[in-house]
Amino acid sequence: MKDMFPRSLCYAGTRRILSSAARVRGANRTTLSRFVHATRSPGSVASLRTLTPGLVITAASIVAGTGLYYVSDFMMHSHPILNDSSSIDNLEAFPEGLKDNHPLRKFDSVYELVPGLRKDMPMKEKMETLLKFYQKEIVAAIEHADSSSQKFITDEWSRGEGLGGGITRVFQDGRVFEKGGVNFSAIYGTLPPAAVQRMKANHKDIQIPESSKLPFYACGLSLVIHPRHYLAPSVHMNYRYFETRNDDGTPQAWWFGGGQDLSPMYYNEADAVHFHALLKDVCDHHDPTYYQRFKKWADDYFLIKYRGEARGIGGIFFDDLNEKEAEQHFLFVADALSRFLPSYLPAVRRAYEMSDEPRPTPEEGKHWQGLRRGRYVEFNLAVDRGTSFGLQTPGSRVESILMTLPKNASWEYNYHPTPGSLEAKTVEVLKNPKDYV
Amino acid sequence: MKDMFPRSLCYAGTRRILSSAARVRGANRTTLSRFVHATRSPGSVASLRTLTPGLVITAASIVAGTGLYYVSDFMMHSHPILNDSSSIDNLEAFPEGLKDNHPLRKFDSVYELVPGLRKDMPMKEKMETLLKFYQKEIVAAIEHADSSSQKFITDEWSRGEGLGGGITRVFQDGRVFEKGGVNFSAIYGTLPPAAVQRMKANHKDIQIPESSKLPFYACGLSLVIHPRHYLAPSVHMNYRYFETRNDDGTPQAWWFGGGQDLSPMYYNEADAVHFHALLKDVCDHHDPTYYQRFKKWADDYFLIKYRGEARGIGGIFFDDLNEKEAEQHFLFVADALSRFLPSYLPAVRRAYEMSDEPRPTPEEGKHWQGLRRGRYVEFNLAVDRGTSFGLQTPGSRVESILMTLPKNASWEYNYHPTPGSLEAKTVEVLKNPKDYV
Repeated sequence: MKDMFPRSLCYAGTRRILSSAARVRGANRTTLSRFVHATRSPGSVASLRTLTPGLVITAASIVAGTGLYYVSDFMMHSHPILNDSSSIDNLEAFPEGLKDNHPLRKFDSVYELVPGLRKDMPMKEKMETLLKFYQKEIVAAIEHADSSSQKFITDEWSRGEGLGGGITRVFQDGRVFEKGGVNFSAIYGTLPPAAVQRMKANHKDIQIPESSKLPFYACGLSLVIHPRHYLAPSVHMNYRYFETRNDDGTPQAWWFGGGQDLSPMYYNEADAVHFHALLKDVCDHHDPTYYQRFKKWADDYFLIKYRGEARGIGGIFFDDLNEKEAEQHFLFVADALSRFLPSYLPAVRRAYEMSDEPRPTPEEGKHWQGLRRGRYVEFNLAVDRGTSFGLQTPGSRVESILMTLPKNASWEYNYHPTPGSLEAKTVEVLKNPKDYV
Repeated sequence: MKDMFPRSLCYAGTRRILSSAARVRGANRTTLSRFVHATRSPGSVASLRTLTPGLVITAASIVAGTGLYYVSDFMMHSHPILNDSSSIDNLEAFPEGLKDNHPLRKFDSVYELVPGLRKDMPMKEKMETLLKFYQKEIVAAIEHADSSSQKFITDEWSRGEGLGGGITRVFQDGRVFEKGGVNFSAIYGTLPPAAVQRMKANHKDIQIPESSKLPFYACGLSLVIHPRHYLAPSVHMNYRYFETRNDDGTPQAWWFGGGQDLSPMYYNEADAVHFHALLKDVCDHHDPTYYQRFKKWADDYFLIKYRGEARGIGGIFFDDLNEKEAEQHFLFVADALSRFLPSYLPAVRRAYEMSDEPRPTPEEGKHWQGLRRGRYVEFNLAVDRGTSFGLQTPGSRVESILMTLPKNASWEYNYHPTPGSLEAKTVEVLKNPKDYV
């Protein structure tokens, strides 16, 4: 056995594996498949076999950190190293689950689609049924797209008897998705007089009850997803329904709010146009003024004012929407929710597709992704009124609110990308919101 | 040459080097010195020499990522990998610059100490002279303690003619210190009526001038330091002086504000007691009520309210201080500034000292440091009134304000340390501020 292959061949084979292993440790996107290829090809398997067990173990341990059996595990794509973003990002192989398309559903088809939903339900129940349906559907689609065995965790929580609660679904450390959450909540509470006065400005129907505190009901679905790949954008979506109530519990004033926005690390026009085109399509079906109004509202809302820079390429945003029959707004929200998966997942898929467009190196990409995520954190913690309102509300569930934060974020003093670079072009778009459709 | 050493020896030597190299790539603190040792010892150099050039190159490239000559660079401690916190933290070797002690200065000795400072100057000039002196001294001490060739950068900035400006000094990617800033600013502006009304609550001397807008002057020194080592605490210090002015430019009301607080990732009682003892010493020299009042104020101020958790182990904090002669408050601030270096640097040194105390592994330490820095970001962006005021002030310099953010921060959904762990013990202290002296 010892003399079956000449020594020079052993060294050549070892060198090839070790050098691939080194690059894998450095998270170089071009090497993972090469390493898998090298260990799978008959030649390299032969040269592995000719080496003493000691050296084979060493080569393997460089890849996986410890132990003998990881080479084969690694080849099977099942080793936990693939789930450890600090040591490796598997950005080379195409995630199979991203291949599926999510076809566009027929507008106004929500009653055919959502089990248990009926036109004659009170709006509160309709919205809860709708939002829970899409929470399940989106969770399943994201798990599938992640192309791993990673699953969302579920935290059901309650604010106490009669105060409502929610279902928090959180995803972490997947293959495609680094961190994300899809949270449903339905809350009962009372508003203090100052908050009521502010609300009355937009809602003339609000009557202050004799008890002086105004009972309210609110339900919503909040989603944020941060993919692992620096070429894949983060996304946010939120739809909610609000009711004030008379002392006897009957609904008084009501309105809808929500929106969705896309935050690329690297601006890609095709993604931006696709995202906005689907939103415009939904808006136009329901009201010819919606898209223009709600796109502008998103540009204003998702702005990091003190930096004069948006957190992404916008989308739509609206609040206090009660200008039509509630049913019409409900159908609008249902159609918007139906467009979420087909508006977003193609942009994630594109990150893994071969392309002739200029791309950053993995080092540039990860570095810039960290800084852009720092900006995302800035928006959520220092600017976003929704987050601020949530954190200041007594009894709110902090972990459900802050699931929106990325796993990692970074800051460097006064960092400015090189003029003309892909990073600089992205900042240019973020500072000057434009019309995509 | 080929047959000078038996093959098994070659493999043993290679295995030792490669396995060290693998651990270095994984930023294991116990291996950097071991690898350097291995390649320096005659035995390992001999075994290196017996291998074919191909395999030696491969071994070297695993350490440094690319190329042939990095083994010797690496041995000389001059390769950029040592300055790259993402791939390695040099937490093993003791930084020589941390050995120096900073003796405690005599109280009330500021006029002997600070060149150009005279008792008969207007307070505005005294404070500017004092703060600039300490900015220089602290910058020099931090550079020295860093034990590298890394230097602070300097950004002098102006808000425009007659509006003031500042000197921002920022440090990044040192050996001991990962990120930090020591910023001086001196600002002239006018306060809108609403802000004046709020201020009048604490300052009866304030007269609203005929112009209805109130002119003010403010100067301050702000410092935040985030060391690289997870056992070394972050620190914050800020001292400032505020004057309102009559329309003719003469001073009207005035007050001092400031404080300093320590944010350990891992609670260490000796550090906390030392930090608080020096602060109490300064406070007691100036007023027997200061320490108790200002320590309580810090516990209240540096609290992340929605988490019921302090960002660190506190220190002192005060604002609107004008209960004595201005000169007495000035001497208090000067003495507090003189205690900064001796109160903080010993806690950084301790991180590198051998100790029998239980310590986290480097993996645990880095992971927990990231999460604690996430909390630091939360406090600064979502809670701190100073940051919020700064970011909302038109014409403020965002990069100088946000230099307080750490280089890296991370968030995980609903993370709770294992009960009884070092991390859990730290959280316990952060949730229950105690008396250290």
